[in-house]
Amino acid sequence: MPRIDLASVPGRKGSGYPAPFDAPCADRTRRRLGDAGGLTDFGVNLTTLPPGGWSSQRHWHSHEDEFVYVLEGELVLVEDGAETLLKAGDSAAFAKNSGNGHHMINRSPVTARYLEVGSRNPDDVITCSDIDMMSPSSDGRFLHKDGTPYPGQG
Amino acid sequence: MPRIDLASVPGRKGSGYPAPFDAPCADRTRRRLGDAGGLTDFGVNLTTLPPGGWSSQRHWHSHEDEFVYVLEGELVLVEDGAETLLKAGDSAAFAKNSGNGHHMINRSPVTARYLEVGSRNPDDVITCSDIDMMSPSSDGRFLHKDGTPYPGQG
Repeated sequence: MPRIDLASVPGRKGSGYPAPFDAPCADRTRRRLGDAGGLTDFGVNLTTLPPGGWSSQRHWHSHEDEFVYVLEGELVLVEDGAETLLKAGDSAAFAKNSGNGHHMINRSPVTARYLEVGSRNPDDVITCSDIDMMSPSSDGRFLHKDGTPYPGQG
Repeated sequence: MPRIDLASVPGRKGSGYPAPFDAPCADRTRRRLGDAGGLTDFGVNLTTLPPGGWSSQRHWHSHEDEFVYVLEGELVLVEDGAETLLKAGDSAAFAKNSGNGHHMINRSPVTARYLEVGSRNPDDVITCSDIDMMSPSSDGRFLHKDGTPYPGQG
């Protein structure tokens, strides 16, 4: 049945980032709704982010579009030289290959909830803006920008 | 700026269906958020559907995944031999090429609001379940299932 039974979708807490980059995202919880519904063209995550949390390390994708819709709470969208407040009902789009990294930070006292949509492309590469980290999306590993792996990501 | 200014995104009312198939969708209003944000891999529509309205003619896609998230109100999801109530916070996924057409009907007394996400594939074909209508998604025309156009869709 196409309706997604939210209770059956596991919440995955934290990120796969190597330490210490995982710390700001440690309390982020994602529910992979698109995967649960058998979709392959794009992913849809229902994500909760408590006060102080980061949605991710600031990054951009070479070959994947991203879209965010805020359901509850407030998030500060951080990009190169810009901060933008996103409230419930706000959305934001991140076209692939912009070269301008983004992430969202919950600076409010209330847990935020949002949907994130991202296309899937085997050629995609994630580049972080503020730290020495990148990832070929297809294998999920996080590497130094020179291609050498972080410990535990070999 | 990636934040989408909702006030600047035009609401498109009705469908492109030929008469009489347009009537049940005449009051559906879509705002194309993904297009407004410059995305090309998938579309994201913020859609309102007043009481009595249909989301679309019942259909399935050959090459495009679809996803729906209900923001406000209630919708009845109709498929082959099944009806499912979707409430605010519910979502549903429609994997491509299922052969099982779907649409949503607002049988409640309150306008419903939902997000719909769909991938984009130039090979996609929409097939309607209950009427003699199909469409090659790439050109947006609606045809009889034998390929002949409806009046005004030539």
